[in-house]
Amino acid sequence: MLFIIGGKEVALKSIGDLELRSGKILKDVKIAYHTYGKLNPSADNALIICHALTGDHYPGRFGKIKGWWDSLIGPGKVIDPGRYFIVCSNVLGGCYGTTGPSSIDPDTQAPYAMNFPVVEFADTVRGQVRLARQLGIKKIHAVLGGSMGGLQVLEWGMQEEIPVQKLIVMAASPKSSPFVIAFHEIQRQAIMLDPDWRGGEYYGREIPSAGLSVARMVANLSYRSEPSLTAKFGRKPAWRTGVAEDPYQSFEQRFDVQSYMNYQGDALVHRFDPNSYLYLTKAVDLFDISRGRKDLEEAMASLQGDLYCLSINTDLLFPPHEIVEMVRLRRKAGKPAEYYEMNSIHGHDAFLIEFPIIEPVVKEWLD
Amino acid sequence: MLFIIGGKEVALKSIGDLELRSGKILKDVKIAYHTYGKLNPSADNALIICHALTGDHYPGRFGKIKGWWDSLIGPGKVIDPGRYFIVCSNVLGGCYGTTGPSSIDPDTQAPYAMNFPVVEFADTVRGQVRLARQLGIKKIHAVLGGSMGGLQVLEWGMQEEIPVQKLIVMAASPKSSPFVIAFHEIQRQAIMLDPDWRGGEYYGREIPSAGLSVARMVANLSYRSEPSLTAKFGRKPAWRTGVAEDPYQSFEQRFDVQSYMNYQGDALVHRFDPNSYLYLTKAVDLFDISRGRKDLEEAMASLQGDLYCLSINTDLLFPPHEIVEMVRLRRKAGKPAEYYEMNSIHGHDAFLIEFPIIEPVVKEWLD
Repeated sequence: MLFIIGGKEVALKSIGDLELRSGKILKDVKIAYHTYGKLNPSADNALIICHALTGDHYPGRFGKIKGWWDSLIGPGKVIDPGRYFIVCSNVLGGCYGTTGPSSIDPDTQAPYAMNFPVVEFADTVRGQVRLARQLGIKKIHAVLGGSMGGLQVLEWGMQEEIPVQKLIVMAASPKSSPFVIAFHEIQRQAIMLDPDWRGGEYYGREIPSAGLSVARMVANLSYRSEPSLTAKFGRKPAWRTGVAEDPYQSFEQRFDVQSYMNYQGDALVHRFDPNSYLYLTKAVDLFDISRGRKDLEEAMASLQGDLYCLSINTDLLFPPHEIVEMVRLRRKAGKPAEYYEMNSIHGHDAFLIEFPIIEPVVKEWLD
Repeated sequence: MLFIIGGKEVALKSIGDLELRSGKILKDVKIAYHTYGKLNPSADNALIICHALTGDHYPGRFGKIKGWWDSLIGPGKVIDPGRYFIVCSNVLGGCYGTTGPSSIDPDTQAPYAMNFPVVEFADTVRGQVRLARQLGIKKIHAVLGGSMGGLQVLEWGMQEEIPVQKLIVMAASPKSSPFVIAFHEIQRQAIMLDPDWRGGEYYGREIPSAGLSVARMVANLSYRSEPSLTAKFGRKPAWRTGVAEDPYQSFEQRFDVQSYMNYQGDALVHRFDPNSYLYLTKAVDLFDISRGRKDLEEAMASLQGDLYCLSINTDLLFPPHEIVEMVRLRRKAGKPAEYYEMNSIHGHDAFLIEFPIIEPVVKEWLD
């Protein structure tokens, strides 16, 4: 179950066996990636971009694919391929080409499904480092990402194999709070509740689409905010074939926001593997940059690169106070750290929406 | 499927046929209720207490039942049965004795299931008014409730059959926002996703317990807050038979907050009817005190009784700004309105937790 995006064949690199942080070995790992621009002769103009939970490795435009950060990436834009060698790869455990639960386990010749090992973003980034080496990169100007992407940025700061100059982290905390874990637990339970999930052994059959849809609805709510839904929908009724529904008359008739939630849930079903969803939300839950260190203070002191953090005032998942604390500890260690709190009604997803606010901030930080 | 609480037989009153706001007739409606204290000779010492979504009609202690507002209700407490005649009844559409989806439809002699009509809290309160008359009540000192209970309090202010002196509304808004509706939509989808739901026709068979459990988990998250889960669980692993789980080693092993969420979900399964859950969340979605009026300003001017509102600073569902607006419009109409914003890390559920804060506020408002 490889989701081919926009009919394009995915560029893949084999990075060999990967010893995971759990001690398990993931054999013959492949990484799907895309690049924009060219590596300069001194091999030090690379930008690494890390995608969010259901994102892919096309942050900028590629043929018919618009790219999820298209407003930021492209000729003449803040992240200009004329200046930088931009690399984005699909995460470990994903479903867009990188080895994940839907990949064939070389030991059994069947998809891993739930036999896929638990992966952490430290593992993902170790794979990304190998990819960067294969691409000839010697030094990285900046690593950027929002949400799950931001967690990977922090792990890039923890590795020591390739020098990194700047870490640009958006809407991401130094560890996932129990509130994030609780949101994800519900999403996983919804997928596993679907009878089509079959313990993860659904490849070649019906996928657990209703469960994935409910999971996505839960996630979507955590990405938004009360003011954003109020501004967008209020209490307007839904429209079915040109006629306003009357939620006061029958159980089935809905408000517009209900129809929107279901639409958002269903839209993911056609482009994402439910088992990947389980493993990636788990990986977010496991994220704690202080793991294996004395505490968060020591971890923040150890990061390589200058730290730049952006938070969103209405973010339910990674609220500003967690990000402020990360910046405080970094500064306490005598290291530079910039901080910007964005005001937006859009909640967590503002890092994918509020480009007029983000653009000048990223420009200043990159230059 | 009548959930008998604490082995007690439920007191029921027949209130006859009820014409619903939708125009449909609900036949031979029964209301389950409980009273504390005695009606005085002038029949004007009544307090009506309205319960929340999965609550019952025992807010105070009754035999072995502790009561969900036990800290507030009882001899020598703020709500003293020695002084007041306290009445609480199970809502229309509920599963603790009042007519709901699990009741027998007199037309078919089978449970209503999803043939139960859509009910609104205006309907519920019309039933409560009939009950109050049957109990001989002539004047009501105060109506009190939190969350879904608070919505009923506002509907009590809209009826004109029995005079009400005070309306005490906690953690409830004058209309449900699309954020509340979205939260509920997910909960309903989770129940309906469970194959045991069978379109609501599960009476006498397995109930859709996994779906109800996921629904309850979603609800529980909306009732809490990031700081409350962080304070209670942090990133502690769960314990299974005395041994700490290691979430980093296998997919099944969990953090403590995951185990807590599942426990909370499963706990509801033994005491609530999934179809009632569908109809009551729908009723909350439908709630808009301005419905049938020009606007919220006119509605707030029309309420009978003095208005007292309590909000919670961390409430995700009914945030302070919505409650502040209601108070503002009430005052604009030249009517008295008191407002108290509670500081608590506990989120929406604080009205069931923070009794040392609530008690003096309710005392002042009642006296």
